[in-house]
Amino acid sequence: MNKKAVILLSGGLDSTTCLSIAKKQNYDLYALTVNYGQRHVFELDAAKKVSQSIGVVKHSIVNIDLGQFGGSALTDDIDVPKDRDDSNMTDIPITYVPARNTVLLSMALAWAETLGATDIFIGVNSLDYSGYPDCRPEFIEAFERTANLATKAGVEGNIFKIHTPLINLTKAGIIKRGIELGIDYGITTSCYDPHKKGISCGHCDACILRLKGFKEAGLEDPVRYK
Amino acid sequence: MNKKAVILLSGGLDSTTCLSIAKKQNYDLYALTVNYGQRHVFELDAAKKVSQSIGVVKHSIVNIDLGQFGGSALTDDIDVPKDRDDSNMTDIPITYVPARNTVLLSMALAWAETLGATDIFIGVNSLDYSGYPDCRPEFIEAFERTANLATKAGVEGNIFKIHTPLINLTKAGIIKRGIELGIDYGITTSCYDPHKKGISCGHCDACILRLKGFKEAGLEDPVRYK
Repeated sequence: MNKKAVILLSGGLDSTTCLSIAKKQNYDLYALTVNYGQRHVFELDAAKKVSQSIGVVKHSIVNIDLGQFGGSALTDDIDVPKDRDDSNMTDIPITYVPARNTVLLSMALAWAETLGATDIFIGVNSLDYSGYPDCRPEFIEAFERTANLATKAGVEGNIFKIHTPLINLTKAGIIKRGIELGIDYGITTSCYDPHKKGISCGHCDACILRLKGFKEAGLEDPVRYK
Repeated sequence: MNKKAVILLSGGLDSTTCLSIAKKQNYDLYALTVNYGQRHVFELDAAKKVSQSIGVVKHSIVNIDLGQFGGSALTDDIDVPKDRDDSNMTDIPITYVPARNTVLLSMALAWAETLGATDIFIGVNSLDYSGYPDCRPEFIEAFERTANLATKAGVEGNIFKIHTPLINLTKAGIIKRGIELGIDYGITTSCYDPHKKGISCGHCDACILRLKGFKEAGLEDPVRYK
């Protein structure tokens, strides 16, 4: 019997690649999509398609109304910035969702403990990371320590591991790895501000980084842009 | 202008006392109740009454369907244990909800950051704690460290503090402190398995610890028991 792993899956390029890497490592896959009131609901459809395409034991979608707290262009009625210079993306942008990865990892931890799993995968990336503090290795290490102190499983000596297989890869490197693993990136979506039917805007930070990644990998992005 | 604080409020004895202590410390109170699919929904009504009685700026109730993960007598259809010997409550019981305080604190962190607050209160208690690992000081310290690495506010040098004013108090000590602060414990509820109209069972771990606390404080518990 394979070990179980919980994989955080937004339906974007990074988390899809992360899911595929966990599969390659022979884990039984439990994909977790947290709907935190983000404005890009197309992500949820993408996450479903990705789960079916890669093959998971279970895909859970958990709704949390993080949007009622406000404070981010991804959950509020604030304009998503367009055509930012990517050399300037180390500033923390308005698309930052407060404490997002802490919330996502705590939900993954709850499910993992219930499943008897100790392996959690998250597709964070510290290179092309848009300046989010909760994508840094030191944050991941601190959360892992918290997880092991927080849980019955941890107290009983089952050590939780937060896997971040993309953390040191460039966007181009992530795409190349995913293509090797046979991912169809046409079913993923990354755009922060998609048009009707999920057509990507091509101008938000996520689109700019994605397009740059495909270009540097010498490949064409299969998703539709406006 | 007072500083803002986010206080996790279940509507039970401990969190109500914690809210009252934060008020005494002159914080503007933002009470957060997380409905994680617990079977004792009377808690939500109690939390509303407590918020009104003590006086908060805002009371948010956030729904998260933690119950779909299963694994606890508080969210599943598993019998709540009755009449356990309180000297034996250091074992982790079936009422343990996986990663609960990690989930609660991550939600509080998200709201606090949005409000521009850095003070979070949680009514955990390491003495009469029913054996939950996420009530220990070492867990709280690890979460605090994570919070400061996770957030834009933390990166910018605003240090988050997780306040645990009850951590070293006995249940009797908590009740005495609350009475001094003028709390009406008749509007709180602690029972894990309440009967219709929120009448407490008197036999679950929470009722046993609560009744013992009132007895040791030399006071009568104003809530109704079956």
